[in-house]
Amino acid sequence: MTPTVFTRERLIRFSDCDPAGIVFYPQYFVMFNGLVEDWFNEALDINYAALIAERRIGLPTVRLEVDFKSVSRLGDSVLLSLQVERLGSRSLTLGLECRSQHDELRVKVRQVIVTTSLVTHASVEIPSDVRAGIARHAAVVQ
Amino acid sequence: MTPTVFTRERLIRFSDCDPAGIVFYPQYFVMFNGLVEDWFNEALDINYAALIAERRIGLPTVRLEVDFKSVSRLGDSVLLSLQVERLGSRSLTLGLECRSQHDELRVKVRQVIVTTSLVTHASVEIPSDVRAGIARHAAVVQ
Amino acid sequence: MTPTVFTRERLIRFSDCDPAGIVFYPQYFVMFNGLVEDWFNEALDINYAALIAERRIGLPTVRLEVDFKSVSRLGDSVLLSLQVERLGSRSLTLGLECRSQHDELRVKVRQVIVTTSLVTHASVEIPSDVRAGIARHAAVVQ
Amino acid sequence: MTPTVFTRERLIRFSDCDPAGIVFYPQYFVMFNGLVEDWFNEALDINYAALIAERRIGLPTVRLEVDFKSVSRLGDSVLLSLQVERLGSRSLTLGLECRSQHDELRVKVRQVIVTTSLVTHASVEIPSDVRAGIARHAAVVQ
Repeated sequence: MTPTVFTRERLIRFSDCDPAGIVFYPQYFVMFNGLVEDWFNEALDINYAALIAERRIGLPTVRLEVDFKSVSRLGDSVLLSLQVERLGSRSLTLGLECRSQHDELRVKVRQVIVTTSLVTHASVEIPSDVRAGIARHAAVVQ
Repeated sequence: MTPTVFTRERLIRFSDCDPAGIVFYPQYFVMFNGLVEDWFNEALDINYAALIAERRIGLPTVRLEVDFKSVSRLGDSVLLSLQVERLGSRSLTLGLECRSQHDELRVKVRQVIVTTSLVTHASVEIPSDVRAGIARHAAVVQ
Repeated sequence: MTPTVFTRERLIRFSDCDPAGIVFYPQYFVMFNGLVEDWFNEALDINYAALIAERRIGLPTVRLEVDFKSVSRLGDSVLLSLQVERLGSRSLTLGLECRSQHDELRVKVRQVIVTTSLVTHASVEIPSDVRAGIARHAAVVQ
Repeated sequence: MTPTVFTRERLIRFSDCDPAGIVFYPQYFVMFNGLVEDWFNEALDINYAALIAERRIGLPTVRLEVDFKSVSRLGDSVLLSLQVERLGSRSLTLGLECRSQHDELRVKVRQVIVTTSLVTHASVEIPSDVRAGIARHAAVVQ
């Protein structure tokens, strides 16, 4: 049983890079945030924008562990991947990676996200359709 | 003779938006910068990253005129378009637009770019392959 | 009668700069947005955060005219300045500049801002305390 | 012997915040990067811009551990602090915190930075003046 991996290609753009000519590291978190959006919209079949703007469910990060293994440069096409490491009642642990086209590991992240009310900023249970989407997506290759 | 228009679709992401829930306006310039990169790579057949990092040619903006007509929201899929309005010996005037899927004009930009040496930051002539790419691209639909 | 100019010093940071080693131009608009915040908080005596988050008044930009005259580099300390060019009933025209310590003009901006309801995104009259703050600030040196 | 703590106040700006009205978490790393710049310039007496742009020494992050404890909102004035946890021959471990004015812990970071050549991107020994600056700064309160 292999865990399902959600993957997207991403071009490293001028706006991602710093005066050293490589990705400015906070920009990796912007890229991974976009990957989570795509995962919701495309794999879990949950409208990410509606979740935030209409249903007022937030997905703040509470814990990050990150290893930066090698640099990415302007013009590189990288592969961003996501898999669920743990699904709790109010939290989700994601394993995220950025790899080069030649499968060189660039960045490895363990990210813990909680679901919150954007009205109170208190944690709430993961909505049932999000939970079902994660289960369904995981089942595809299991 | 219709001018050639280069168009790309772009999802408005969480990281593009501000506390008002709409695109933070400087982020439109990040999007349009990405559009120019795609235009170089895909329409002009000029490797944008190599132009900057290896050939050390810069493309700084010297003039911008922008009208923000209506707001874009998280989750919107917008159409970004580019056409050449004027091709000088050392400068390029672009007409850029952001429109909704229903063809509502969101943002209209007139941007003047110059070609510079990234060693001296002085202006240089537009490289001949860039000029040829622009001519070839323009010729496609003319 | 000289118009009042509001000025703040700003260090050009690593995160402001691009692979060319100079300020990435959208970042100037982030800097000027911060200048407007400081102007509200410090010169107009209007709490900017409360204006946005509690009073739900937005300050979107509807028009920009920008000339980029020379580049700013990592480590430069620049002077950002703001003056009111026109005060309408629902809009405000600002003249913004970025200058070097030696008074070299780097960027010159004419920016038209409107006041809106963040609930409807429709324009609203400039709140009376904001209008009074602008009048009081202008009077200081007149 | 108390470790020296370098502290700077920082206003949470509109451009730091997301559609949830709170700091978009990658933006904390932009703030902490600015804190490291200030620490070099003001505490270590090392010109950060010259280190990067002239001496071509890079300071990439290789490891991050981050706990986000509570949210920061637009208009908050936060305290960013830095202390050296470990000084190696080619690496530096920093303890970073963001706290509210009432000393509420918002974000806690352990960051490992290495010194590299920006020509080769290979690690190099921490330059002797940087090492001396760190020792001198640490000695102030020891």
